Amino acid sequence: MNYRIISHTVGRILQLEAALLLLPLFVSLLYRETDNVIAFLISAAAALAVGLLLTYVLGKDDRLLFAREGFAIVALAWLAMSAVGALPYVISGAIPSYADAFFETVSGFTTTSATILNDVENLSNGIIFWRSFTHWLGGMGVLVFIMAIFPQESGRSIHIMRAEMPGPTVGKLVPKLKETARILYLIYIGITIVEAILLFLGGMSPFESFVHAFGTAGTSGFAIKADGLASYAPHLQWMVMVFMLIGGINFNLIYLMLIGHFRPAVKSTELWVYLIIIVVAGVAVTFNVMPIYGSFWESLRQAFFHVISIVTTTGYSISDYNEWPLFSKTLLVVLMFVGGCAGSTSGGIKISRFILLIKAVFRDIKQMLHPTAVSGVRFDGKKVDDKTIHGVSTYFAFYFIIFFVILMLISFEPFDFETNFTAVSACLNNIGPGFGAVGPLASFSAYSVPAKFLLSFAMLLGRLEIFPILLLLMPSFWARK
Amino acid sequence: MNYRIISHTVGRILQLEAALLLLPLFVSLLYRETDNVIAFLISAAAALAVGLLLTYVLGKDDRLLFAREGFAIVALAWLAMSAVGALPYVISGAIPSYADAFFETVSGFTTTSATILNDVENLSNGIIFWRSFTHWLGGMGVLVFIMAIFPQESGRSIHIMRAEMPGPTVGKLVPKLKETARILYLIYIGITIVEAILLFLGGMSPFESFVHAFGTAGTSGFAIKADGLASYAPHLQWMVMVFMLIGGINFNLIYLMLIGHFRPAVKSTELWVYLIIIVVAGVAVTFNVMPIYGSFWESLRQAFFHVISIVTTTGYSISDYNEWPLFSKTLLVVLMFVGGCAGSTSGGIKISRFILLIKAVFRDIKQMLHPTAVSGVRFDGKKVDDKTIHGVSTYFAFYFIIFFVILMLISFEPFDFETNFTAVSACLNNIGPGFGAVGPLASFSAYSVPAKFLLSFAMLLGRLEIFPILLLLMPSFWARK
Repeated sequence: MNYRIISHTVGRILQLEAALLLLPLFVSLLYRETDNVIAFLISAAAALAVGLLLTYVLGKDDRLLFAREGFAIVALAWLAMSAVGALPYVISGAIPSYADAFFETVSGFTTTSATILNDVENLSNGIIFWRSFTHWLGGMGVLVFIMAIFPQESGRSIHIMRAEMPGPTVGKLVPKLKETARILYLIYIGITIVEAILLFLGGMSPFESFVHAFGTAGTSGFAIKADGLASYAPHLQWMVMVFMLIGGINFNLIYLMLIGHFRPAVKSTELWVYLIIIVVAGVAVTFNVMPIYGSFWESLRQAFFHVISIVTTTGYSISDYNEWPLFSKTLLVVLMFVGGCAGSTSGGIKISRFILLIKAVFRDIKQMLHPTAVSGVRFDGKKVDDKTIHGVSTYFAFYFIIFFVILMLISFEPFDFETNFTAVSACLNNIGPGFGAVGPLASFSAYSVPAKFLLSFAMLLGRLEIFPILLLLMPSFWARK
Repeated sequence: MNYRIISHTVGRILQLEAALLLLPLFVSLLYRETDNVIAFLISAAAALAVGLLLTYVLGKDDRLLFAREGFAIVALAWLAMSAVGALPYVISGAIPSYADAFFETVSGFTTTSATILNDVENLSNGIIFWRSFTHWLGGMGVLVFIMAIFPQESGRSIHIMRAEMPGPTVGKLVPKLKETARILYLIYIGITIVEAILLFLGGMSPFESFVHAFGTAGTSGFAIKADGLASYAPHLQWMVMVFMLIGGINFNLIYLMLIGHFRPAVKSTELWVYLIIIVVAGVAVTFNVMPIYGSFWESLRQAFFHVISIVTTTGYSISDYNEWPLFSKTLLVVLMFVGGCAGSTSGGIKISRFILLIKAVFRDIKQMLHPTAVSGVRFDGKKVDDKTIHGVSTYFAFYFIIFFVILMLISFEPFDFETNFTAVSACLNNIGPGFGAVGPLASFSAYSVPAKFLLSFAMLLGRLEIFPILLLLMPSFWARK
């Protein structure tokens, strides 16, 4: 293990965070929130100091970056970022408990949007901005951001990108990785700005427009009102719906469509399955909730908003779907695990893994019936090698084992089965709210401090797709060779 | 697809069932239950008639039995057996609704013990005997039974045995498959008789001794009192505990121990993990339920009884563990999926699959860190081929997909999330009772008729490890080549 390159890169991330903390500082200045200005200043200074120490005193840049270091960098960078990102909440007094602030920050960076705040409307603008900005930063990945902006990244960075980007396969858009990272970020920024402008034209204030665009592009979902997006006009809700939908699509496909190549999108199995799941689930829920909302169109909006919000693992809400009939609720619980497309900003297991798994099952059945026949799995016309298939089914199975282990650990908390089950599901899958006592109108504040750290851990596991975080816990991972 | 051999063998199973129905008929005669005598007589006649028709008119014995036919025979035999096995309940009036009777019969044969009866103590002895006897028959597998007793089974029967026996690998104990089947059944009968004698010596009536021995050897769990085994003396409960424990062990190991080979048992990873899981979970639950029971020894008995009952997927209870703290309940829910050892009569996913999966994950992690290194998975000193590993992780992942699909379908029922979740879990894993409205003191009677068929389907999926039943639903499976 090359400790110095790890220290160097994690330090780099903290320096970047120091710079990024100037943005909410600027917002706080704008709104004359003196307490916040001080809080962000101290936090930025701390991030910079620790960052410089890690990068230049303890660390050293060199080319020796392998998969092992890639995993360590990603896991530690996310932990360090969250540890420092929690400071403004504590220093400004917005969230006095560090455990709570850490939970909220991890929830931000991992695009989860599970909150411990019971009175979100009382937050100052600077804090709200930081909270939503963490979402935006975590959506595309902070290390990808580093790769996009720093000139001297080595060719080995693919290990970092693989560890931070969701999905079974991470490819390059263009031959150069650095260019790929830049393109991804440009699209991401573009989508955010377009949405913010549209929301503004639709009637939101500029501040609200940006905050909601941050929460949508990263399929994150921190709301700034107690009732989520319920009080906004239906046309604004439809806009958010469309952008959540976009956020759940593979960014590679979006890039290709932007440069005029529609064929890959039209022929993408994952995209079709993604859309079909949304339409089928949306229609099913529409009819299931009709007795509650009366009108068909109202039911349709309610159903599709929450189906899209959950499938893309955003977590925005426009009503208390906790009160829905059990079928709709169970459907949403199942969709929590499904998630969006690979290579998108969404969480969950990802649709391509489901497709590959089902295909593998059918292949296996075929081989059971014709033991001598040899058949492969094809995905979007390409043959998928056995190693990928194996990786997908193992990931899948292991995901559920981890889910049940966390569920067991959290069951010491004084809640019911539904609450704990959906709390773990909402955190591991990076959704945000669950059902029961952690429903869309409630918060995670009543969980104990150890439970909050456990759930923060679950969010990180989900966002980084288990292995980087898991490896941190293995002593053999740290052994010098 | 060779339809005639399928028809021939399924017919054979029904003839066997006709013969087996004479046993409860005899019990009914003994207790002078005239209604039952008639019910069993009609049912036996029906089974015989249909069986003869299928075997000799529609079917034809030949050697052309491949994997495809093996799956079809197992799935259809279990369905036919259950359809006919439900008749005595309906004809005798014990369970007037056919859907209920079918559910109860499937629950019996699959060793699940989920019941729709609210007043089990009112059953007549003949019916109780049949109900518990279905358990016993299903435990080791009816087709294995056929193989053990009929002389002319072909060497191809391994396809049947593989489809009916639980676990990722099915081996022969001795070179001849027929001999293997015979040995397995002899052990099974031996264990049952020893337990019955011990329970009798412990103070149960001969009838109760046999009924409970039937329910334990097959790790099945139909109780004959409303409060399960709560009203029996603690020493009887400890006896049942020991035999449940034995029922969850791989019968191959039991055979080897019986002929004096203890080494394979001592070196069996699965057996050790099985025992460790039980001890760790038992101790954890003991301390968790101490506030309820006060005394340590009472808590210990309560904890270990239910941990063993759930891990072995038996489903006997000695108290309403529905009232336990959430941690113990969640632990039991997780253990429901774990199940006992492969090659035992237990349900669930099976411990060897968990071990193989975890080993595969560690292998994958190792390969992520050292992409050039090649490493295999070893299990009990032997190298496991990639195909088996792949099969295990796919099975695992697919198991959860099926679980969630059934959970979604059943969520139209007017219950809460906990009830539905544990109802599906209890049926798919062949446990019996769940939590909430389907707890150990409750029943499944309040579910609708479609839900009862769906849950019966789940029990069959679980008992036959998904594929045989799933294949039945695929049109391509039935295509003539």
